Amino acid sequence: MGKRYKTTYTIPFYETDASHCAKISHLLSVVLQVSGIQSAQLGLSDQYLLDHYGLVWVVTDYAITIDRLPVFSETIIIETEAKSYTKLFSNRETQILAQDGQKLMTISATFVLIDFETRRPAPIPKELMTIYDADFVKSINRSPKYPLLTETQEMTCPVRYFDLDMNGHVNNSKYLEWLYDAMPLDFLKEHYPKQINLKYLKEVYHGATIVSQVQLTDTTSHHQITSDGNIKAQARIEWQPFPITKKTC
Amino acid sequence: MGKRYKTTYTIPFYETDASHCAKISHLLSVVLQVSGIQSAQLGLSDQYLLDHYGLVWVVTDYAITIDRLPVFSETIIIETEAKSYTKLFSNRETQILAQDGQKLMTISATFVLIDFETRRPAPIPKELMTIYDADFVKSINRSPKYPLLTETQEMTCPVRYFDLDMNGHVNNSKYLEWLYDAMPLDFLKEHYPKQINLKYLKEVYHGATIVSQVQLTDTTSHHQITSDGNIKAQARIEWQPFPITKKTC
Repeated sequence: MGKRYKTTYTIPFYETDASHCAKISHLLSVVLQVSGIQSAQLGLSDQYLLDHYGLVWVVTDYAITIDRLPVFSETIIIETEAKSYTKLFSNRETQILAQDGQKLMTISATFVLIDFETRRPAPIPKELMTIYDADFVKSINRSPKYPLLTETQEMTCPVRYFDLDMNGHVNNSKYLEWLYDAMPLDFLKEHYPKQINLKYLKEVYHGATIVSQVQLTDTTSHHQITSDGNIKAQARIEWQPFPITKKTC
Repeated sequence: MGKRYKTTYTIPFYETDASHCAKISHLLSVVLQVSGIQSAQLGLSDQYLLDHYGLVWVVTDYAITIDRLPVFSETIIIETEAKSYTKLFSNRETQILAQDGQKLMTISATFVLIDFETRRPAPIPKELMTIYDADFVKSINRSPKYPLLTETQEMTCPVRYFDLDMNGHVNNSKYLEWLYDAMPLDFLKEHYPKQINLKYLKEVYHGATIVSQVQLTDTTSHHQITSDGNIKAQARIEWQPFPITKKTC
């Protein structure tokens, strides 16, 4: 069990989508922001890590379980902990709760530390994870097997300037948006994710054109994001129908 | 002079761009959110307006002056007022200030009220604007003349699912992102806007493909956003070089 950090957040209008629910891509960003605040409070800010170790945290996998999506103007509780780590991977689990304590979402993120200069994974220093009270474990359950997709619907789009964040790379949350972009609108109007597994393979930079491919069967969609013929990310989403009253997403 | 509403806001990591500054598109969204809070506190929420008048506010023009852009983790002061109105147009002015009171940006927004059913402009009820203490004026200085562009650089992109907000239309702030998308990256690395004028002509919906066209001469860019051969928005941006130390944007 890691040290827990808890805060609240109110969903703004501009981070809701056409279904009146919070954008999941936005929630991922907010959760990263909250994790960053916890790390800074523990004296382990991104800047400290870079200055003292030459390392940066990078997300490799997400596993997201959704019972209900937060809605516009709802104040949610975010509770996060760096739970466990192996030699190379670290797992952070975040719960999103309603005001009455009802569980809305669980976001499990796998991170690696990469060397800022070489961009290669580096062993996780034990002294860092001790500060988080994270458990050392032999392995972390990362992601399902993603099939290689052949018959897909696809959407092609240039990487846009505002897809980049302060690091000059495409922000993690944008990949999730690309998954949605390839889905039929009529399906998105009726369904929202129950379970998302998303794996990042390679970084995408400005100037690239990405192809978001999807193979949708019943309520399961398989995705791959490619650029220049290389797979950059893979995902699997299980969808569930919206409740009859959309107000509760 | 209208009633003023003041709040603070801290720039999150995921709303900074590759220049380490706050995304202007995000600031526009935040300012709309803050205006909405003021309106609700005065008993004039969007829902009240829709329920009692069948009307919704729509932005038609922005005039934005920038001295310095807020940076990552900076806490800014946002001060807004519905300043004046004519029979059909209303003007809201928002100042963004640094903690020491230094003026960073002025965002002047022109709004019309449209009938929710017919989507046509409606006269502004005087009793609403009295609550804001807004001045009735004969005319509001809206926008410069935008030239029709012929020789342009352009970027073509489908409207993406997350470009839509809760209303099912492309969110206002996305148009500003499209303006940037057509600009050369090398130019964006060296410059940021000094003055932006942006005019919305027609709404864009999901399923459309937009073309963002730009004609850049020295430090002035003229823009038009078209879809199906129709101009949806026009803009003019005067750019200024970043200070030598990017830390102050």
